[in-house]
Amino acid sequence: MPRYKLTIEYCGTGYVGWQRQDGQPSIQQSIETAIAGFCGETLLIQGAGRTDAGVHALGQVAHADLSKDWPAERVQGALNAHLRPQKIVVTDVKIVPESFEARFSAVKRHYRYRIVNRRAPLTLDRNLALHVSHPLDADAMHAAAQVLVGKHDFSTFRFIHCQAPSPVKTVDHLRVSRFGEEIEITCSARSFLHNQVRSFVGALKWVGEGRWSAVDLRHALEARDRRRCAPVAAACGLYLTKVDYPE
Amino acid sequence: MPRYKLTIEYCGTGYVGWQRQDGQPSIQQSIETAIAGFCGETLLIQGAGRTDAGVHALGQVAHADLSKDWPAERVQGALNAHLRPQKIVVTDVKIVPESFEARFSAVKRHYRYRIVNRRAPLTLDRNLALHVSHPLDADAMHAAAQVLVGKHDFSTFRFIHCQAPSPVKTVDHLRVSRFGEEIEITCSARSFLHNQVRSFVGALKWVGEGRWSAVDLRHALEARDRRRCAPVAAACGLYLTKVDYPE
Repeated sequence: MPRYKLTIEYCGTGYVGWQRQDGQPSIQQSIETAIAGFCGETLLIQGAGRTDAGVHALGQVAHADLSKDWPAERVQGALNAHLRPQKIVVTDVKIVPESFEARFSAVKRHYRYRIVNRRAPLTLDRNLALHVSHPLDADAMHAAAQVLVGKHDFSTFRFIHCQAPSPVKTVDHLRVSRFGEEIEITCSARSFLHNQVRSFVGALKWVGEGRWSAVDLRHALEARDRRRCAPVAAACGLYLTKVDYPE
Repeated sequence: MPRYKLTIEYCGTGYVGWQRQDGQPSIQQSIETAIAGFCGETLLIQGAGRTDAGVHALGQVAHADLSKDWPAERVQGALNAHLRPQKIVVTDVKIVPESFEARFSAVKRHYRYRIVNRRAPLTLDRNLALHVSHPLDADAMHAAAQVLVGKHDFSTFRFIHCQAPSPVKTVDHLRVSRFGEEIEITCSARSFLHNQVRSFVGALKWVGEGRWSAVDLRHALEARDRRRCAPVAAACGLYLTKVDYPE
């Protein structure tokens, strides 16, 4: 019973998110249906990150145990054939030891958030980035963001229904960079609270607008109070880019 | 009667192209309808590049004469409001002298072609890039492409119904670069023949596959014979990125 590690890319628009929800289109269910279509096996897969409705992924990871020993390439080709014409593809398949768990073996998760900061509405990037029409100060956002790096109680930046046992997480990296009219925010940590990255982005947007200073952001963090968070940024700008595992 | 220079961005998917065609959705007609909706004037606009069905633009340019003296910002905001929810936006509006003609004053046009070169089908880039699943040698493509730079008779790379008076054009720049799994081809010239860039890309794809050498490409150019062209590359990878005018 070999275990397969699937690396998955998808456009989250139109899906209720990664996680299976009865009767609604989810990424997880689409992949499970493709597995059943390919080899007839009905199984539940687990992803490394449970992305919300509208959130995209370039490098989501899941694992699946198949009863037959298929070559990895064959599994990839067959799943992609069955996933068509959905905007979900398996970009890589590897056979891994049974001890590998997509969710629990992960040592780091990387997210990217895209803001297009210009007056005109979006065309090619619609649903693929957040549109902000008033000018944002990306340098101020980056400087303030460093307040959030490190080990903290992130209760302020946590969805009220978040199920994580503890609000304490360690953010390894949080960077805000401007490339012309685009602002990219990258964030890495071993694991995240529910809505943590989008809550960070919402708060940093307030900093970029001059509505909050870095000190205000620090006070919001220290308050450990969800009511002190700025509005959570829209799902369409968020990408799960990569998940790291030990060698 | 002030003249306005409009810079326009659009996703060409689902449109018959820039040019108005009776009863079918075109970019030109969408903008003319937005102008009529905003100020009640019925006029025909001309674009700097007549992009084909499915071709995108980041910096198409058109001009329009309005009978009233609107501030440029007001024109931009109103047109974008009327263009909603289409994937067409006016990214800039400037008042220009009456001598300015979007098509005839242009001194250089810049195009970009995007290829995603990987085994897995496309998700986020679907309709926004050409998918090529077998490996392409981008270095060989770039080296061979230099054969096409300069002043040549491009009859081989010209749509059979192209209406340009002469097949002789001067290509200033043709570059093929790889960024990970993405290959970007950029091309600049004062003006182009119909399908010229997509014909170049089709031929360069053959070079990238090892099917043609740089010498084969040169022979195809020198043949001045449309039948010697490789298949024209799909519209979805092509972007009109910028149009230059004299100061």
